[in-house]
Amino acid sequence: MSEAAECLVEVTRGAVVESRHRVHAAVVDADGRLRAYAGDPDLVTFFRSAAKPLQALPLVEDGAYDRYGLSLEELALCCGSHSGSAEHVRVATRILEKAAVTTEDLACGAHAPGDSAERRRLEEARLEPGRVHNNCSGKHAGMMMLARARGWEPADYHRPEHPVQQRMLSEVARWSQVPSEAIGVATDGCGVVCFALPLRHMALSFAGLAAAVRAGDRGPATVFEAMTTYPTMVAGEGRICTELMRQAAGRLFAKVGAEGVYCVGVPGAELGIALKVEDGAARAVAPAILGILRELDLISEDDFGALHDHAYPELRNTRGEPVGQLRPAIALQVPDA
Amino acid sequence: MSEAAECLVEVTRGAVVESRHRVHAAVVDADGRLRAYAGDPDLVTFFRSAAKPLQALPLVEDGAYDRYGLSLEELALCCGSHSGSAEHVRVATRILEKAAVTTEDLACGAHAPGDSAERRRLEEARLEPGRVHNNCSGKHAGMMMLARARGWEPADYHRPEHPVQQRMLSEVARWSQVPSEAIGVATDGCGVVCFALPLRHMALSFAGLAAAVRAGDRGPATVFEAMTTYPTMVAGEGRICTELMRQAAGRLFAKVGAEGVYCVGVPGAELGIALKVEDGAARAVAPAILGILRELDLISEDDFGALHDHAYPELRNTRGEPVGQLRPAIALQVPDA
Repeated sequence: MSEAAECLVEVTRGAVVESRHRVHAAVVDADGRLRAYAGDPDLVTFFRSAAKPLQALPLVEDGAYDRYGLSLEELALCCGSHSGSAEHVRVATRILEKAAVTTEDLACGAHAPGDSAERRRLEEARLEPGRVHNNCSGKHAGMMMLARARGWEPADYHRPEHPVQQRMLSEVARWSQVPSEAIGVATDGCGVVCFALPLRHMALSFAGLAAAVRAGDRGPATVFEAMTTYPTMVAGEGRICTELMRQAAGRLFAKVGAEGVYCVGVPGAELGIALKVEDGAARAVAPAILGILRELDLISEDDFGALHDHAYPELRNTRGEPVGQLRPAIALQVPDA
Repeated sequence: MSEAAECLVEVTRGAVVESRHRVHAAVVDADGRLRAYAGDPDLVTFFRSAAKPLQALPLVEDGAYDRYGLSLEELALCCGSHSGSAEHVRVATRILEKAAVTTEDLACGAHAPGDSAERRRLEEARLEPGRVHNNCSGKHAGMMMLARARGWEPADYHRPEHPVQQRMLSEVARWSQVPSEAIGVATDGCGVVCFALPLRHMALSFAGLAAAVRAGDRGPATVFEAMTTYPTMVAGEGRICTELMRQAAGRLFAKVGAEGVYCVGVPGAELGIALKVEDGAARAVAPAILGILRELDLISEDDFGALHDHAYPELRNTRGEPVGQLRPAIALQVPDA
């Protein structure tokens, strides 16, 4: 494999590049072939929340979706890192009710919602944010529903030894084609298990899922339909996952992960893409994935244009003056034959 | 010059390195000799607020310090990126009064103070933060005082063409030994001019200042005495500049800049150090500078131990559980003779 050229997101101030984010990426097809890459496609890092679409599959496959009458909108929230808006909270609460558990049973910690209206509402009412505002509350609610469906006690569902977390690990192993015992585990931001594996295998997971969607397999097709029909449940207004899936209108599914991870699956091309901003910066993720999708001709110029403010976010100072921007400087490599 | 080894701040989660921050650094003596480096010592980036000690020098050298009876504590705030605590606001307000201007004359924008007590006080009183809370309000107040002392109209002091900003540029050129016309300029976070130059020359500025402190030159010695006597004015409780200078007890002066810049001057060794976290991450700055200072034997094991929580910051999740840490992985190079 040839030495990789630099794949960057540049941060400008005036006419100078002030900071640089390096991007590692793997583009893989459903047969596991590396079709393009940047940096080190075998970089091992955590899947973080980009694994959520895989983690939602057992809800459909193990019968919870049918048994508890989960809606597509609710399933989308289980795949999401939501903004904690009033609507997100409402949908999360419905999932909890269907699983016959309460917000008190959520193992995730509370944090201030990303949604500014809900944050302001809480501040003005002098209320503290609750666990249900945690961006992962949909996933957590789904995990307890899975426990119910499988006849497992929901208590301690977040612990690595709980069968829910073991089921998550086996699903990640299945799609990534990395044996369970070779997947690194640690504690995620919300308290459940997160998974470390090479970027190439994260991309393979999304490629396999994309191919299964194309083939019409029920689990993947349902998760895909949920995410692409209700993209606001996967993130929130103005955020990249929501805006990208809305713009792409069913041609791809996409999920961000903390510390600079992003994964995309493209059913039509049976491709999966996984990227890691080396330093973990959230600000570089949208420019990176949009630059890569354009480089691969997986989004049109029109779609890229509509998402311009995500590809080239403007930086403003405390006076509100524009002082610079982020911009993708993407150079994907093609592996030697 | 040999190919630089990687100089990193690693971000761990469990047993895995999840993210990596690359660090560029230059260690320069007062004669301009590069004594050690990491990455690209000639990397051009913005000095940002690490230039503030240089920008405070004209206050002493041009007579404002004497004429308006500025105290050492107030001078330290002019060198600082403060936390906007009640005490910082009090000192900034005194400088404004001595310069016969008001908070309304400040050109910096308002932002929420870093100081949690002051932030809570504002929230509870339902008050918006003011311009005086801006971390740069001391520098701005000093700039207006400089204008008064020089007989320039303070209005529009933040504009590039104003003599105050021209005076700042000439001072940066003087100490960095980069001609004014070769210094890149752009707009800083607070609205004044910021300066782009190679890291090596930022380090030279601090080395020259360190040598001048050692020689007892009045301007540099006064700024040094201010910063090291009132380190809380330079940043705030719990922050790296304050804690490092407090611990080093007069053996060095240190200043952070936005987007991952840090500079240190060591009068005893007549050395200057400048580093840039390539991606601009603030979280990596303290581990990077402490790792470099230890590598150079410029702080003792005891001092390093006392600053352990800055060198190895713990990462906690939304449940409050420790999930990982940052850690320096410093490999400085020595230039070929």
